[in-house]
Amino acid sequence: MLTLDKIYSAKYVLRQVIRETDIIKAPKINPESDIWLKTENLQITGSFKVRGAYFKMSQLSEEEKAKGVIACSAGNHAQGVALAAARNGIKSIICLPDGAPISKVEATKSYGAEVCLVKGVYDDAYAEAMRQRDEYGYTFIHPFDDEDVIAGQGTIGLELLDQIPDMDAVIVPIGGGGLISGIAFAVKKLNPKIKVYGVQAAGAPSMYNSIHDHQIERLESVSTIADGIAVKEPGENTYNIISQYVDEIVTVTDDEISAAILALMEQQKLVTEGAGAAPVAAAMFNKVPVKGKKAVCLLSGGNIDVTILSRVIKRGLLMSGRSCSMNIELLDKPGQLMDVSRIIAELGGNVTSIHHERANEGSAVNGCYLRIVLETRNYQHIEEIRNALTDAGFKILNIN
Amino acid sequence: MLTLDKIYSAKYVLRQVIRETDIIKAPKINPESDIWLKTENLQITGSFKVRGAYFKMSQLSEEEKAKGVIACSAGNHAQGVALAAARNGIKSIICLPDGAPISKVEATKSYGAEVCLVKGVYDDAYAEAMRQRDEYGYTFIHPFDDEDVIAGQGTIGLELLDQIPDMDAVIVPIGGGGLISGIAFAVKKLNPKIKVYGVQAAGAPSMYNSIHDHQIERLESVSTIADGIAVKEPGENTYNIISQYVDEIVTVTDDEISAAILALMEQQKLVTEGAGAAPVAAAMFNKVPVKGKKAVCLLSGGNIDVTILSRVIKRGLLMSGRSCSMNIELLDKPGQLMDVSRIIAELGGNVTSIHHERANEGSAVNGCYLRIVLETRNYQHIEEIRNALTDAGFKILNIN
Repeated sequence: MLTLDKIYSAKYVLRQVIRETDIIKAPKINPESDIWLKTENLQITGSFKVRGAYFKMSQLSEEEKAKGVIACSAGNHAQGVALAAARNGIKSIICLPDGAPISKVEATKSYGAEVCLVKGVYDDAYAEAMRQRDEYGYTFIHPFDDEDVIAGQGTIGLELLDQIPDMDAVIVPIGGGGLISGIAFAVKKLNPKIKVYGVQAAGAPSMYNSIHDHQIERLESVSTIADGIAVKEPGENTYNIISQYVDEIVTVTDDEISAAILALMEQQKLVTEGAGAAPVAAAMFNKVPVKGKKAVCLLSGGNIDVTILSRVIKRGLLMSGRSCSMNIELLDKPGQLMDVSRIIAELGGNVTSIHHERANEGSAVNGCYLRIVLETRNYQHIEEIRNALTDAGFKILNIN
Repeated sequence: MLTLDKIYSAKYVLRQVIRETDIIKAPKINPESDIWLKTENLQITGSFKVRGAYFKMSQLSEEEKAKGVIACSAGNHAQGVALAAARNGIKSIICLPDGAPISKVEATKSYGAEVCLVKGVYDDAYAEAMRQRDEYGYTFIHPFDDEDVIAGQGTIGLELLDQIPDMDAVIVPIGGGGLISGIAFAVKKLNPKIKVYGVQAAGAPSMYNSIHDHQIERLESVSTIADGIAVKEPGENTYNIISQYVDEIVTVTDDEISAAILALMEQQKLVTEGAGAAPVAAAMFNKVPVKGKKAVCLLSGGNIDVTILSRVIKRGLLMSGRSCSMNIELLDKPGQLMDVSRIIAELGGNVTSIHHERANEGSAVNGCYLRIVLETRNYQHIEEIRNALTDAGFKILNIN
């Protein structure tokens, strides 16, 4: 059974392994709340997962340690297990589906794990991990549904009570539910007045659905940029703890998560992955009742692929009017491109790409299309440019 | 005269205003050194500048405070002065050239300053600030060449001696030289064994040149993505302090700075501006003699425009082989595009954009060009794709 004792014991075991990550005030996330960030994205391995994995392994018998551990994950859990095993002098095997991003595979290897690529998807890798466990006697390290793992994550709750004892609420992402189970248990046992809110991706609401329907439910499929919390089925332990200790679960969309990732980069200089930004999305878009309250958002991790980050930034710029693309119909006569360029330049728009094409299907035979991508200041600036072009006689087919 | 007393006094004044920013280990920046980061990018206002500005204002007479302060800056100094003035209950005016990015103007206003947009460039805004100082009796807050400002920045040196007393070296960006002057003075007075290295942008080496030539020199122009350290002329105080207390100054290129910005995002989950990443660039590319040493890189700030960040990421991906664009010559016959797509897909390349064009000047009349942008895994992966396309008979005109 999970106890406060176990969480305190984890805190002691972890004291020389993990960082006590900073909490940082975030004044602009929601002007009506006093929002603080617990920066587990700055934890070693880039996520909180190392806490649970390390404590779990410290509790194994000498015989279990000698045989080694196995896990199945393409993400933060893999890196947490790999590092924790290396620090404990234990052999670790991580099973991954063979389509896993090479960056994740390399990161896992770099922490000292043996990587086993399995043809297929996550479920195939999981089956292979189970097979190897049975054949070789490895201990399987579950990513969330394990009391020692939950106790390890719960050390964050103890840190928060030390760092910001007057908090009214803590907002935590939920995938399988290990992180919030540990935090909610620690916080509620010591100060039941503090609210604990869970956040899931709208495209992967497995715990949200299960809690609402009062039974564990499995999703057929999940789809979200927050891959760290894209879990099809809650754990039993985590389902029970969350039922008892979490006040409310809400969901956020991928667009809301993207806006939160961008806000954290711009306002707080912090890189977060989708799961890590989900609590901030919930606070930004008023999904949780923290008006007038002091609330901590748990930034669970920062392991986002930069190509995805680059897309998130691009989308965030579009959504906030700081970039736009326009399709303009031109007459096919000299000077038209120059006129468009001049108008945009005079208004301070910064052209980043132009595509100029003649006589498409559907256009007049002497027509031309110009597709321009611009850096702009805001929506009003885009409107000014659109109006100036329209006033000069250009036909703008669409803007986005 | 600058004294340790003054820096300790600044530390006392600042104790309830600023954050004592964390230091974080960065194990992958340079495998041969023990690199740590002092995260002033996570300071309030997103840079260290608030330290000097606040302490300076705290030292003004009541009469001076009643009249108000003026500064000239489009960057971190403006935000530091604005916030420091607001917290001290002092009126502040910030003169900016009218071409300043709207994001900087808005940020400065949001901290409570009155913004005065001046037609022209920095020198025009500076002249206007001087005019208003003389007319209205405002106190001008110099961004670096002022002992109180330097003493405020020097508090970072005291924090470092507390946080990481066994450091061998500290690596600090240099623009006008205020930051490194304060840190070098504090550190060398208390522990002269610690090395202090300065880093300038190769496109703005004003202090580097001046120290080498033993006299203050003014650059005609500066050009670097590290706008926070793009300073044409060192200060007198800073020149003298740096001559005495800094061990060596090195320069880094914009490409090196970009690589450092990307590494900090990917490995450390931290957003830094060009100036803030310059010391990491120096450590990554072995510009400073810290092999086998424990060295702290001073991340001075994180206020980088996301459109620039987006370009840095794009360039960083290109430079590390994780994205590439190819121009391929096709014969203008059916099925060619399909063949190219199939080969790329089979090798796991992810096409993000295609531009297909017929019969350019210089190509055979039945020729076609295909420009493909791809997400790739690394240089080796690009080579595999190139070889497979070449083996299938396609002519690759260039890759970049």
